[in-house]
Amino acid sequence: MHVVDGQTLSADETARIDAYWRAANYLSVGQIYLMGNPLLREPLAPEQVKPRLLGHWGTTPGLNLLYAHLSRIIAARGQDLIYVTGPGHGGPGLVANAWLEGTYSETYPRISADVMGMGRLFTQFSFPGGIPSHVAPETPGSIHEGGELGYSLSHAYGAALDNPDLVVACVIGDGEAETGPLAASWHSNKFLDPVGDGAVLPILHLNGYKIANPTVLARIGDDELTALLTGYGHKPYFVQGDDPATVHQLLAATMDVVFDEIAAIQYAARFDGVTGRPRWPMIVLRTPKGWTGPKEVDGLPVEGTWRAHQVPLSAARDDAGHLALLEEWMRSYRPEELFDRNGAPAAAVVDWLPRGDLRMSANPHTNGGRSPHELELPDFRGYGVKAGETAEATRVLGGWLRDVMTANDAHSNFRVVGPDETESNRLGAVLEVTDKAWQAGIDPVDQHLGPHGRVMEILSEHTCQGWLEGYLLTGRHGLFSCYEAFVHIVDSMVNQHAKWLRTIRHLDWRKPVPSLNYLLTSHVWRQDHNGASHQDPGFIDHVMNKKAEVVRVYLPPDANTLLSVADHCLRSRNYVNVIVAGKQPAPTWLDMDDAALHCARGLGIWDWAGNDAGDPDVVLAAAGDVPTLEVLAATDLLRRHLPDLKVRVVNVVDLMRLQPVVEHPHGLPDAEFDAIFTTDRPVIFAYHGYPWLIHRLTYRRAGHPNLHVRGFKEEGTTTTPFDMLVLNDMDRFHLVMDVIDRVPGLARRAAVLRQRMVDKRAEHRTYVRSTGEDLPEVREWIWPTV
Amino acid sequence: MHVVDGQTLSADETARIDAYWRAANYLSVGQIYLMGNPLLREPLAPEQVKPRLLGHWGTTPGLNLLYAHLSRIIAARGQDLIYVTGPGHGGPGLVANAWLEGTYSETYPRISADVMGMGRLFTQFSFPGGIPSHVAPETPGSIHEGGELGYSLSHAYGAALDNPDLVVACVIGDGEAETGPLAASWHSNKFLDPVGDGAVLPILHLNGYKIANPTVLARIGDDELTALLTGYGHKPYFVQGDDPATVHQLLAATMDVVFDEIAAIQYAARFDGVTGRPRWPMIVLRTPKGWTGPKEVDGLPVEGTWRAHQVPLSAARDDAGHLALLEEWMRSYRPEELFDRNGAPAAAVVDWLPRGDLRMSANPHTNGGRSPHELELPDFRGYGVKAGETAEATRVLGGWLRDVMTANDAHSNFRVVGPDETESNRLGAVLEVTDKAWQAGIDPVDQHLGPHGRVMEILSEHTCQGWLEGYLLTGRHGLFSCYEAFVHIVDSMVNQHAKWLRTIRHLDWRKPVPSLNYLLTSHVWRQDHNGASHQDPGFIDHVMNKKAEVVRVYLPPDANTLLSVADHCLRSRNYVNVIVAGKQPAPTWLDMDDAALHCARGLGIWDWAGNDAGDPDVVLAAAGDVPTLEVLAATDLLRRHLPDLKVRVVNVVDLMRLQPVVEHPHGLPDAEFDAIFTTDRPVIFAYHGYPWLIHRLTYRRAGHPNLHVRGFKEEGTTTTPFDMLVLNDMDRFHLVMDVIDRVPGLARRAAVLRQRMVDKRAEHRTYVRSTGEDLPEVREWIWPTV
Repeated sequence: MHVVDGQTLSADETARIDAYWRAANYLSVGQIYLMGNPLLREPLAPEQVKPRLLGHWGTTPGLNLLYAHLSRIIAARGQDLIYVTGPGHGGPGLVANAWLEGTYSETYPRISADVMGMGRLFTQFSFPGGIPSHVAPETPGSIHEGGELGYSLSHAYGAALDNPDLVVACVIGDGEAETGPLAASWHSNKFLDPVGDGAVLPILHLNGYKIANPTVLARIGDDELTALLTGYGHKPYFVQGDDPATVHQLLAATMDVVFDEIAAIQYAARFDGVTGRPRWPMIVLRTPKGWTGPKEVDGLPVEGTWRAHQVPLSAARDDAGHLALLEEWMRSYRPEELFDRNGAPAAAVVDWLPRGDLRMSANPHTNGGRSPHELELPDFRGYGVKAGETAEATRVLGGWLRDVMTANDAHSNFRVVGPDETESNRLGAVLEVTDKAWQAGIDPVDQHLGPHGRVMEILSEHTCQGWLEGYLLTGRHGLFSCYEAFVHIVDSMVNQHAKWLRTIRHLDWRKPVPSLNYLLTSHVWRQDHNGASHQDPGFIDHVMNKKAEVVRVYLPPDANTLLSVADHCLRSRNYVNVIVAGKQPAPTWLDMDDAALHCARGLGIWDWAGNDAGDPDVVLAAAGDVPTLEVLAATDLLRRHLPDLKVRVVNVVDLMRLQPVVEHPHGLPDAEFDAIFTTDRPVIFAYHGYPWLIHRLTYRRAGHPNLHVRGFKEEGTTTTPFDMLVLNDMDRFHLVMDVIDRVPGLARRAAVLRQRMVDKRAEHRTYVRSTGEDLPEVREWIWPTV
Repeated sequence: MHVVDGQTLSADETARIDAYWRAANYLSVGQIYLMGNPLLREPLAPEQVKPRLLGHWGTTPGLNLLYAHLSRIIAARGQDLIYVTGPGHGGPGLVANAWLEGTYSETYPRISADVMGMGRLFTQFSFPGGIPSHVAPETPGSIHEGGELGYSLSHAYGAALDNPDLVVACVIGDGEAETGPLAASWHSNKFLDPVGDGAVLPILHLNGYKIANPTVLARIGDDELTALLTGYGHKPYFVQGDDPATVHQLLAATMDVVFDEIAAIQYAARFDGVTGRPRWPMIVLRTPKGWTGPKEVDGLPVEGTWRAHQVPLSAARDDAGHLALLEEWMRSYRPEELFDRNGAPAAAVVDWLPRGDLRMSANPHTNGGRSPHELELPDFRGYGVKAGETAEATRVLGGWLRDVMTANDAHSNFRVVGPDETESNRLGAVLEVTDKAWQAGIDPVDQHLGPHGRVMEILSEHTCQGWLEGYLLTGRHGLFSCYEAFVHIVDSMVNQHAKWLRTIRHLDWRKPVPSLNYLLTSHVWRQDHNGASHQDPGFIDHVMNKKAEVVRVYLPPDANTLLSVADHCLRSRNYVNVIVAGKQPAPTWLDMDDAALHCARGLGIWDWAGNDAGDPDVVLAAAGDVPTLEVLAATDLLRRHLPDLKVRVVNVVDLMRLQPVVEHPHGLPDAEFDAIFTTDRPVIFAYHGYPWLIHRLTYRRAGHPNLHVRGFKEEGTTTTPFDMLVLNDMDRFHLVMDVIDRVPGLARRAAVLRQRMVDKRAEHRTYVRSTGEDLPEVREWIWPTV
């Protein structure tokens, strides 16, 4: 436990920091309560108090205090610094600071730097048509939404990567610190390169309480807490107190020491050749929850307790006592000293602040990046495989990603993240040109580990996701490769990121951010060896609930289409792109030019596979690599055994094409959909995931009553690849049976073939259980060159 | 860092522990590789090796070592102990131990304790029709599925709660330790009561590697690791080595010390009145990954590296060199000493093991509990509210839950968990009879905290879920109350739990486990104050992808129906029950008897609200409390303004009733569905969540083309409750417009009313943006007593 004692600040400096802090606190309280009389130039009247009091005071004074002291550091050192606040409930604080810095009025001119603007600032907060009560995309200077807790520190690390001049100050609430994602992300310091990356300054804010309970870390004692933070690899500095003057001095002295240490670590690594993992400093700030607010309300203690969490005076509009307390509280900040006659911040309060884009609320890292570069993408067509050849799709992609890595080396703006699966997912080629980032110990036996690596692997999907989000939100590019089943671990994180993307589309001052790209592999149909725990294709369903304007789902059927889709996704901005692709050896169906065209269309008829001559008896459709293979194998069976049957083969890469055009921008117009799928012929659709998703996407199409979908129905565990298909009735034999059952008149004519399919399935079951392998004819089937 | 040195074991004891360990390792390797020649009584031939080698060796020898040493402790002390293994990849190890203990053959008589059984044991592993490669429900003695990592420690704590005589030994893999859920769960020790609960012994197994990378905790050095574990509140004992004889002595000596310490802590708390949080001991075991396996394969080091993770000799069937190495490896365990002439374990290998239900593989805690009690449920009818009265549904439920807590006090078998939201979710009445569990510091200002509390609150949904799963899987009962939006944090955990439930239905020896009950409140329609980050009703969609046989979703429209549904859920077993209910003041629609009947039916026509006399012009249906209110308000408008229009009101509590009977056991037969919803009249359906779910459930119903669903379409942020409805077009005015637009012939007749609805919506928008409140007529609307 380190404590820095010192009288760093002159009386004058203390006074101006304190004035700034009071101003920020005043403006925060005003936002929570007032819809009139913002400067309290007249006595406060009930009707000037909002009818619904919605907001969170508890964490706000602490966030404001840190804002003031970080501004001092920035102004003194010209430090490039952004501020990530885990306790997102502190929305009014961050907005108040942005207004004091002038950024808010620059961003939203209606909220001007005068009494009129201040009035609007107050009224809009947590008000219909106004702004959210949490830190949000609407808040200038933010990359981190408040609300769902746990992602601040991984976001901070993501922002710091490849920004060597940047310090990311990250306030971690002691409530948030109890979450799993936050607890895991402390170890991010084993991945941060003191040479090529910036620094993260974690500030654990112990205000002691959550909504209704004390926090764990505030109640384990300083010794145990010191041990914990030391164990996380940090050198913790403690600042505690409830007297503002004392805390100002302690915090300023500590900040000076901590920023000196950060600079010294970076200098040593960059210029003195010091290697090995540094013990980065961090701050533990222990101040009362709701500090400077009402000490007691209705006879119960409030300041320093959980009762300060939201709105300490809940009846300020209706209860004269509460109203008087509110006015007394707000006047305790002495607004008459803080704002000039126009209502603008008084010069003495703000003239010492950092200027221009060094203001935390205006730092360009938080809005598209300080010096963003488009990703250079080598022409993916050069990496393709010949049609007919067998390839591992993700391994082919890996070759291209390796060269993407190289092409962007000069700008250091591309990263691949994943939970220990880059090689398992067969993207290992990237390790030919970079390492896996690693600052912890390296043994001689280790491979591809290095302090400057651009591949980030930790066995925490949460941390991978948080790193990548922070990296993207500061204007860089990346790819998250993950086992399909386990990506559900970040369901909730992708929800929140999608909300961010949805919101910034409507904020003209927010720059688009590179898309969040998922490569889901080791997917449900090829987890026969790992069994049920590894089988779940539901992430697609999950993201499909997000706003259509931000979500894209691609199911490339082979290596070449995967390349084309990946190129498209890495070029895009403001989307969540989900790509599902296999890593096992599989046929390549389309030459590269055809693949690119097919992906551009999103779906299409594969004339070369069908024999319908424009008028099919049945449509066999597929979305996904394994379903495509089965549909083609079924088509082969049908064409050999029922040569008169006219089969059309349709392949879907872009799942959104199935929706009506009113539902999704990629939606296919009804006329085109009807032309491809017909309106009156049976459609047997083999789909990668849960079958009802296809019904959901198509239920308004004319031909929907004829649609029969096969997909994953939660059957299967440890078995063989083909057995997975049989268990879920999506195997080629069952697809043939489906066709026979659904094409009018075929049942009698094809009765023998149907029985043969039933027998084949039985034969398979017997064979697989005795040998542990799939039938040779299944394993060895190839598309016949007709 | 504590190290216990000592020669605890006699030569004889060492020999028998080592022999047991060798036997378990031999059987583990046999499972991974062999399908013949199990005892190696003849030279190993290629065709005796499985064609597909699927399994994980790396973690297995460590798990087996611990099993042996824990068995020694159990045998010596009669200790009730279960074994939770985080590195679930060690499936073959746990199966091997269960077979050596005899449990496997008792459970699966085909897998007998002889050479025939051993052969079957080997062949079935990771084989079609056999058993999964991970620890799974099929594994006797397990409550923790391997596969998705991170939940072992919270499961262990859940199992230990209210089992004062039990020790749960929990092996945490160093890979798993990187995950968020695991990292958070270390702090569970602040919630474990040394008086009323059992103990958890965490054993951090540092074998150093994941799939392709070293692990973080293995590379931060012993000092930093000691600090970390001390910071987590533990007293860590280190055992490290790669010489079996040495490690046997160190581990045995350490185990003795550690179990003595656990006993001393419990004695002090139970009999000496010692209070305060104990520093529970734990073990750090550092042994090589794949210990005793091949040291080198194809010139590359394997033992002690990531290459030992899965199958170290990948070509044993096809490569003579690999085959020879495999045979050498297996013979190195000296099977001829370990098994008798029949292939049964030799007496000396197993005669010292614990017997009966003290065997870890047979411990009844892992299969329904050692002394399970049905939950006593006071008659919920006594807690109801009169129809017409306003009530906060969850607060009413809280009163009943309080008495459930009291009624089961004697058996200590009911817990409520939640992330700091029990009071926010208005279930605070339970705190009248119990505390919130808390072993950390307590300040005078704190309320309802206590060491013996039965309400468990930590700001980690993962930890809450893990605790509850562990508690349920050992035969006890509970409820998880959570904000609706944030329950997505545990999407992945509920996936895995649902798979467990799905599997045990097909294992006749597994006893049913009490259902996992979610109460989702603070739901999407009442998060207007917290905004977008808190708005997401998609958890219902998520669980709907699980097997129909394990999932139930209930949307009680008021307090009385909530009571009835909660009673039903707490009585049930083997389900995941999701209840969505509001916490805000809302009308009570049904008297208790009607409520109970309505819930028993799952859905029904509300005759009292409609005027259709058996032949409606339109059906207005609702699922969810807020949708029900809006549908009734719309009905009121329609009946007042269009008295000739015959409106039927349908309310849905049990969402599964909407599905066809072939899809779900609760599905309504088509004839009943058609009778209620009609086949040819427009149905306007107001639904709590994403509207397409209703389409998915009903697309096969005859009347589906007439169905028009309103629900949440991702609109809204910080605003008012009614504005949320307007933004999503589910408000009463829009529902009236929907009726007018869809009932044939009504468009012209009701044109004026329709325009009035449009104007009302506009009036609302203006009013809410100027006042911050909803229109009085909306806020004050009550169902007219017609």
